Amino acid sequence: MSDDGMGETRREPPPGFHDVDWTRGFGRQVGPLFRRDEGGRRVMGLFVDAHHTNGLMNAHGGLLMTLADMAWDNVVSMERSMFWVTVRLTCDFLDGAKTGEWVEAGGELISNADNLFVVQGLVWAGERKLVSGTGVFKGIRPREPRPGEKAFLEQMSA
Amino acid sequence: MSDDGMGETRREPPPGFHDVDWTRGFGRQVGPLFRRDEGGRRVMGLFVDAHHTNGLMNAHGGLLMTLADMAWDNVVSMERSMFWVTVRLTCDFLDGAKTGEWVEAGGELISNADNLFVVQGLVWAGERKLVSGTGVFKGIRPREPRPGEKAFLEQMSA
Repeated sequence: MSDDGMGETRREPPPGFHDVDWTRGFGRQVGPLFRRDEGGRRVMGLFVDAHHTNGLMNAHGGLLMTLADMAWDNVVSMERSMFWVTVRLTCDFLDGAKTGEWVEAGGELISNADNLFVVQGLVWAGERKLVSGTGVFKGIRPREPRPGEKAFLEQMSA
Repeated sequence: MSDDGMGETRREPPPGFHDVDWTRGFGRQVGPLFRRDEGGRRVMGLFVDAHHTNGLMNAHGGLLMTLADMAWDNVVSMERSMFWVTVRLTCDFLDGAKTGEWVEAGGELISNADNLFVVQGLVWAGERKLVSGTGVFKGIRPREPRPGEKAFLEQMSA
């Protein structure tokens, strides 16, 4: 019981953004998603589509939180190349996004004591901040660095 | 770019739950969703499907937060029949849910000073608590009571 975004108009994301290759699960369901990797940092983005909206045809709060979750927890992957679980997510809703708008999300690692990672994050549309919040993630164990991650970039330059 | 849940096996929710008639937007995208109304209180539920999962085939954090958002903000509708916006949502992740599991969500209105509504909520699967959290919502203006809401039930019995 869901829209199939394949039928919607294909729009080009801003320069530097590439498709996220999530072909299954909730990542696919809330897509199409894009990412831009630069120097071990990642920004995720999407166009607000009809299948993302609430009753006012704005981006649904659940969609913005899902994008925040994906982008903010990615900080742990990019910085530490670890498996992790989400412990807590706090989202303050500041402004809305309309259908068709391009929305981005990213965060900063501000603490990592005892493998408890705290990320301050934002979701924004152009100059407008939509969501401000904090994610707390628990590192489970290290894994092989993946393309774009800081440890991967260090391996490449070693 | 999304799964079409229509192709999946139709499962019957627990007694008392009925389809949520959201035929568009993010509510449809994350469905099929169900609700059980009783005495002006509502519990929402869904079966975790393939299109709800993370890389571990568990319910994605974004899906659980979306269900929390929908169920906890519904408390404002049920108790006060108002239009509202979400101000803040805090989610503590306690446990996961696997594909096929039936998951429910609901909350309690604990404060309503100055039309700032605070809801303590849970998401659970049987005896297991999955998400515990708080939603803060700002009431915008009253609207006509809808079926299931306390004000609607009072009109009916008047």
